[in-house]
Amino acid sequence: MSDNTQDLIAQLRAIVGDAGLVTDADAQAPYLKDWLGKWQGRVTVVVRPADTAQTAEVVRLCHITHTPIVAQGGNTGMSGGGTPDDSGAQVILSTTRMNRIREVDPLNNTMTVDAGVILANAQQAAREADRYFPLSLGAEGSCTVGGNLATNAGGIAVLRFGNMRELALGLEVVLPDGRIWNGLRGLRKDNTGYDLRDLFIGSEGTLGVITGAVLKLFAQPHARATAWVGADTLEQLVELLARTRARCGERLVAFEMMSAASLALVLQHVADTRAPLAQPAAFNALIELADTEDGGLQAMLEDVLGQALEDGLVNDAMFCASQAQSAALWKLREGISQAQVRAGKVVKHDIALPISSLAAFTQAADAAIAGEDIPAEIINFGHLGDGNLHFNVMIPLSSTYEEVKHATAVFNRLVHDMVARMNGSISAEHGVGQLRRDELRHYKQPLEMELMLRIKQAFDPNLIMNPGKLL
Amino acid sequence: MSDNTQDLIAQLRAIVGDAGLVTDADAQAPYLKDWLGKWQGRVTVVVRPADTAQTAEVVRLCHITHTPIVAQGGNTGMSGGGTPDDSGAQVILSTTRMNRIREVDPLNNTMTVDAGVILANAQQAAREADRYFPLSLGAEGSCTVGGNLATNAGGIAVLRFGNMRELALGLEVVLPDGRIWNGLRGLRKDNTGYDLRDLFIGSEGTLGVITGAVLKLFAQPHARATAWVGADTLEQLVELLARTRARCGERLVAFEMMSAASLALVLQHVADTRAPLAQPAAFNALIELADTEDGGLQAMLEDVLGQALEDGLVNDAMFCASQAQSAALWKLREGISQAQVRAGKVVKHDIALPISSLAAFTQAADAAIAGEDIPAEIINFGHLGDGNLHFNVMIPLSSTYEEVKHATAVFNRLVHDMVARMNGSISAEHGVGQLRRDELRHYKQPLEMELMLRIKQAFDPNLIMNPGKLL
Repeated sequence: MSDNTQDLIAQLRAIVGDAGLVTDADAQAPYLKDWLGKWQGRVTVVVRPADTAQTAEVVRLCHITHTPIVAQGGNTGMSGGGTPDDSGAQVILSTTRMNRIREVDPLNNTMTVDAGVILANAQQAAREADRYFPLSLGAEGSCTVGGNLATNAGGIAVLRFGNMRELALGLEVVLPDGRIWNGLRGLRKDNTGYDLRDLFIGSEGTLGVITGAVLKLFAQPHARATAWVGADTLEQLVELLARTRARCGERLVAFEMMSAASLALVLQHVADTRAPLAQPAAFNALIELADTEDGGLQAMLEDVLGQALEDGLVNDAMFCASQAQSAALWKLREGISQAQVRAGKVVKHDIALPISSLAAFTQAADAAIAGEDIPAEIINFGHLGDGNLHFNVMIPLSSTYEEVKHATAVFNRLVHDMVARMNGSISAEHGVGQLRRDELRHYKQPLEMELMLRIKQAFDPNLIMNPGKLL
Repeated sequence: MSDNTQDLIAQLRAIVGDAGLVTDADAQAPYLKDWLGKWQGRVTVVVRPADTAQTAEVVRLCHITHTPIVAQGGNTGMSGGGTPDDSGAQVILSTTRMNRIREVDPLNNTMTVDAGVILANAQQAAREADRYFPLSLGAEGSCTVGGNLATNAGGIAVLRFGNMRELALGLEVVLPDGRIWNGLRGLRKDNTGYDLRDLFIGSEGTLGVITGAVLKLFAQPHARATAWVGADTLEQLVELLARTRARCGERLVAFEMMSAASLALVLQHVADTRAPLAQPAAFNALIELADTEDGGLQAMLEDVLGQALEDGLVNDAMFCASQAQSAALWKLREGISQAQVRAGKVVKHDIALPISSLAAFTQAADAAIAGEDIPAEIINFGHLGDGNLHFNVMIPLSSTYEEVKHATAVFNRLVHDMVARMNGSISAEHGVGQLRRDELRHYKQPLEMELMLRIKQAFDPNLIMNPGKLL
């Protein structure tokens, strides 16, 4: 360890104390590797400030010493945005000790929280005030609100409540020079200049460290109705989505899609699952309505889907009569990740398209992938209601490292070229991080990259905030 | 006219043709003055490009010649953001010839429009596709979508659908050097870098000229229920808002407040109006629910307000049995502007606070204003559901210019000091423009002003975009 490094650690210790430093190699290990095991880095030290003031001091010290900072929340990212590089020169700033619910304001329908609050705890705090915080995603038991903000997290309720961006009213951010921007405003209307908040949201730790947020709360849903339908084509499901929305309005809270292959994979590899319909369908949808009170929610869903059956838009439908049945359907949807891991090696995609283009994309991409000389099965599923497909391509479990690498390059290019042509996004909800950084430069308009770099330069001229990510 | 000016006009004519230039003084007049008659400027010329390509050429020319540009839509702003200064050196770039609905995509629930489309025409285009575009405000018959975006317009449906910011998915912007940023993406999820869209929205023409947008559409409401209630205190209405939201969820589309003085003013000065309740109430609320289908909407509203009556939270309630009755209630709410003009001279405010602070603010501000040695009546009304009060102070119609000036300085300072202490906004939905520019510098955190200036510098280093506004 160099003198400089020892000196930096001593100064950090003076700010955060022993409790705020992780120097031991074993203790550091979980911070250095992403949970998918794709990226592994090294650091000078992991620092865990107890509050915003300590965070500001830590960042100020890194500013002075030109020490690069990787902010990390629950370390549940999909794109390596929170994993350090392997230079050993970076510092991980973990927000996990900052985990206070600062205030719940039921009359304002807002909640102010530390960035390190775990998403499930934020949901729980809202529930305890008879309110609802709608962000919901697989990692909610360990991801943090700060990470959700830094990556503008999505999940299953976006079609109804929007991304994390739409769920935050105010932010507190430590800027790259250690000054604190207090933007913790709980206002629905504020037109006093440039929207700094939304610049930090989704910037993946490259413009500052988010330390707190004011989040929007909603009325608690007290009734739900869930159904599963099968259709021959994706066009039919897109049409059904439009019909359901026109009829049910904002009661529609989930419209998830699974192809026949996705469902078959889950049924084969996940215990205690069974097919919801008598006959397999080419495309399945899990549809859920919610409301503050019942008022015939189930009847409404049966009516709209009954009409769709009559019109031949769907082949079959199954309605849940109990919470257990609904949970069984959600288990099918949520079992895909696990099933994929067991069944093969997966070239993942996280794309978004205009909903009106999803069917055409799927047809074209299916054909193009079949035309490649690589044994592959398409696992097409996702959040149809907001145009987000996880259009994954699975290759045999026995594939070598080189084969995976080749397949990834081929299929990423094929899928993303098509997405770019159709005015879609190559990263709908997982962010760019390290995973899509090179692709971003390839696909983004040069003008847009230039504007992003100008912003980076304006906010972080020393380039110490999460270097090597996003940009 | 100098040679330089003649030269500039000739070059502009080469781009936009005779149809795109307004050089005649009479024809220019409506562009040079805001509709409230508060600001009046002069220009070299008014240029009206026919499309995005022409706009880009015009801006490119201004970039080369360092000619300052004031972008203007329907010229309905409240803060002078679209009025040129009186140097005569500026050029007005009017977007009003760019008025095409480019595309309506019902399956994607989006609409792509030129910036110059009048808001009411955008609403109409949505309706024709059996969809709903919810932005609604007094000027909707003449304001443009581009102006709505540049000022992040609010209005009466924000508590349910958000500001213009929440209603836009993609933008097309001509940058200060004349290059076109095509961000016309119709995606609900897109996490590929910094959020440029939201930087332009609300930037009041200081970072570029918005020429097109992709807007979100919603399901058409097919049922509405409207009621009027009277209460003794603002606390009671805030509590009623919370209850109504908990019970009715997103059916609640309007919760407007009028003080007794506001209502009395309308009844006195606007023809064909009558009091909705038998006894005047200190605070009134106009409450509206909407839904895609009826399903007992009226009964739900009667139930929640009936319970509030029983609990003594409100004194009286009137339910609308017809569209005509509902229109009569809305006429009371919308009549305030007209009534104020007839009754006195008005020191206007457009503030936002956490909803939980509205009552405390009102009490304190009422007392403080009564303590000033200026004859004044408080006209307190606004969008209670999103914390936005137009807390206006009316002084006698006979007040002199000097008296108005003095009262404005005193009451602006008093109200805005209080708003700042309560973590509110001094410009909720009207923007900064010229009206609040000096106050913005006074109230905004220096750090936030600094970040805004850095962004301005990064995007518009020659400072040609709407100089003298906002910053």
